[in-house]
Amino acid sequence: MRLPGRPVMRDFSRGTAHLSVNTATLRKQLTLPGIVEACAARGIPAICPWRDQVAAAGLDATARQIKDAGLVLSGYCRGGFFTAADAAGLKAALEDNRRAIDEAATLGAPCLVLVVGALPGALQGTPAYTDMRLARSQVVDGIAASLDYAKAAKMPLAIEPLHPMQAADRACVNTLEQALDICDALDPERTGALGVALDTYHVWWDPKLEAQIARAGKQRLTAYHICDWLNPTRDLLNDRGMMGDGVIELKKIRGWVEAVGYTGFAEVEIFSDRWWSLSAGEVLDTCIARYQTVA
Amino acid sequence: MRLPGRPVMRDFSRGTAHLSVNTATLRKQLTLPGIVEACAARGIPAICPWRDQVAAAGLDATARQIKDAGLVLSGYCRGGFFTAADAAGLKAALEDNRRAIDEAATLGAPCLVLVVGALPGALQGTPAYTDMRLARSQVVDGIAASLDYAKAAKMPLAIEPLHPMQAADRACVNTLEQALDICDALDPERTGALGVALDTYHVWWDPKLEAQIARAGKQRLTAYHICDWLNPTRDLLNDRGMMGDGVIELKKIRGWVEAVGYTGFAEVEIFSDRWWSLSAGEVLDTCIARYQTVA
Repeated sequence: MRLPGRPVMRDFSRGTAHLSVNTATLRKQLTLPGIVEACAARGIPAICPWRDQVAAAGLDATARQIKDAGLVLSGYCRGGFFTAADAAGLKAALEDNRRAIDEAATLGAPCLVLVVGALPGALQGTPAYTDMRLARSQVVDGIAASLDYAKAAKMPLAIEPLHPMQAADRACVNTLEQALDICDALDPERTGALGVALDTYHVWWDPKLEAQIARAGKQRLTAYHICDWLNPTRDLLNDRGMMGDGVIELKKIRGWVEAVGYTGFAEVEIFSDRWWSLSAGEVLDTCIARYQTVA
Repeated sequence: MRLPGRPVMRDFSRGTAHLSVNTATLRKQLTLPGIVEACAARGIPAICPWRDQVAAAGLDATARQIKDAGLVLSGYCRGGFFTAADAAGLKAALEDNRRAIDEAATLGAPCLVLVVGALPGALQGTPAYTDMRLARSQVVDGIAASLDYAKAAKMPLAIEPLHPMQAADRACVNTLEQALDICDALDPERTGALGVALDTYHVWWDPKLEAQIARAGKQRLTAYHICDWLNPTRDLLNDRGMMGDGVIELKKIRGWVEAVGYTGFAEVEIFSDRWWSLSAGEVLDTCIARYQTVA
């Protein structure tokens, strides 16, 4: 019996209709053309490629190969890194984001994922400053300055809140609430031009997660990424877990996401020295099996 | 010129009047009696000891030694770990917290710090369940069930929000906002019996930090811990930085804390394989120097 008001979740137990693979998951095993081939061979209908992989394979060739293989994109990784130590750096970041938007459009991506940046230079080891409020204000300015260009290209921008353990070096947007505050400020009309990429790895711990997913609604839930939080976790970047190997309540979170009307892909994105050490086939077969059982 | 409404921060540049050392900072170098001695010898007026160290040295002997040395406590570490897989486990946790409250009272601590617990068993490697909402509800129940005992003992409980990267195994209270929500629920009269232990390491990343510190106010800011976030951070537990070696805006955060009237100690708590490998004297001298310059 279906309870009133309680939407039935999509059935993932057969097939792969809603599965996407973020190509970073296989970046150590295969080049992008090989990943496209391997996904197509297994009936995985979507991927989310990274810019460096696309650049290595060629933008137009990649667009063609993906189309010929019958795949679609669940997103394009990534724009962002809007913070900088000086005006020249801020300008360069905006220009780079425009290129990323153009590439995403050429590839037919449904959104450009934004890893917004944090303390500039921190990722390279030496932060130019430590003022988190300044970093956050530069991020808002950078998204604001990119939005018209993105709208003209009909390319939605998806802010990805990153886990607080990556607040210093990768993204100073660290909760879904904070990302939605930015959406409210820059796109109050909810045009769909600005949304969020929700990655279970980054947000699973958040006591406000369910409420903020409801707040986001379908229009702002632009992408949904899955993997698992291992217990224990041995590295802050490259020890993500395969779905089912950790503690994240994946079905519960997907239930919240689908309750607001999300109908897009569940995109598997796993940065993991362990999974990078296995064959691409084994990784993809495991992705499919876990997608069907625990995601 | 002092701007109206802008409180002057306490001057830490000379002396050690507001410095406390959490004894975990030296747990690999010295036993508790040795730490008390070393702190007293340097004019450090306060410590925050851990239960296991106190147990090893003897509760009454420790209370005596601390008093004789002229030291005071800035807190007692730690109660908490309220979650469990079954009723027996929940009961055992409550009993253990009562013992911790009694010990804190014997030692004359101003508060018992609560690391509230998370998925039960996760710290030992095997979580008994993964339902974060259940864990959080067990935590609220556990604090509620401990509060009368704590009040009778005149021992304030200080909820310590832990960094979200420790949400699975150590504490499912992960933001100051969440901790204050619990305070509001269980002690709406703001009696002072329930507050928070604010550790810069756990909360520095939070975009709502300043606002939530203002919300906490003097009555709920029961303890203030300092150390630094290293960039990069190589371990989720034991790679904390000495103040000044990382990216946390320590003076800015202390400014927010003192703006609401906090007059207590700045307690240095550093879990670090690097600092544990140095001599206790070198660590303490560095703590004093950094306290005077960057904290």
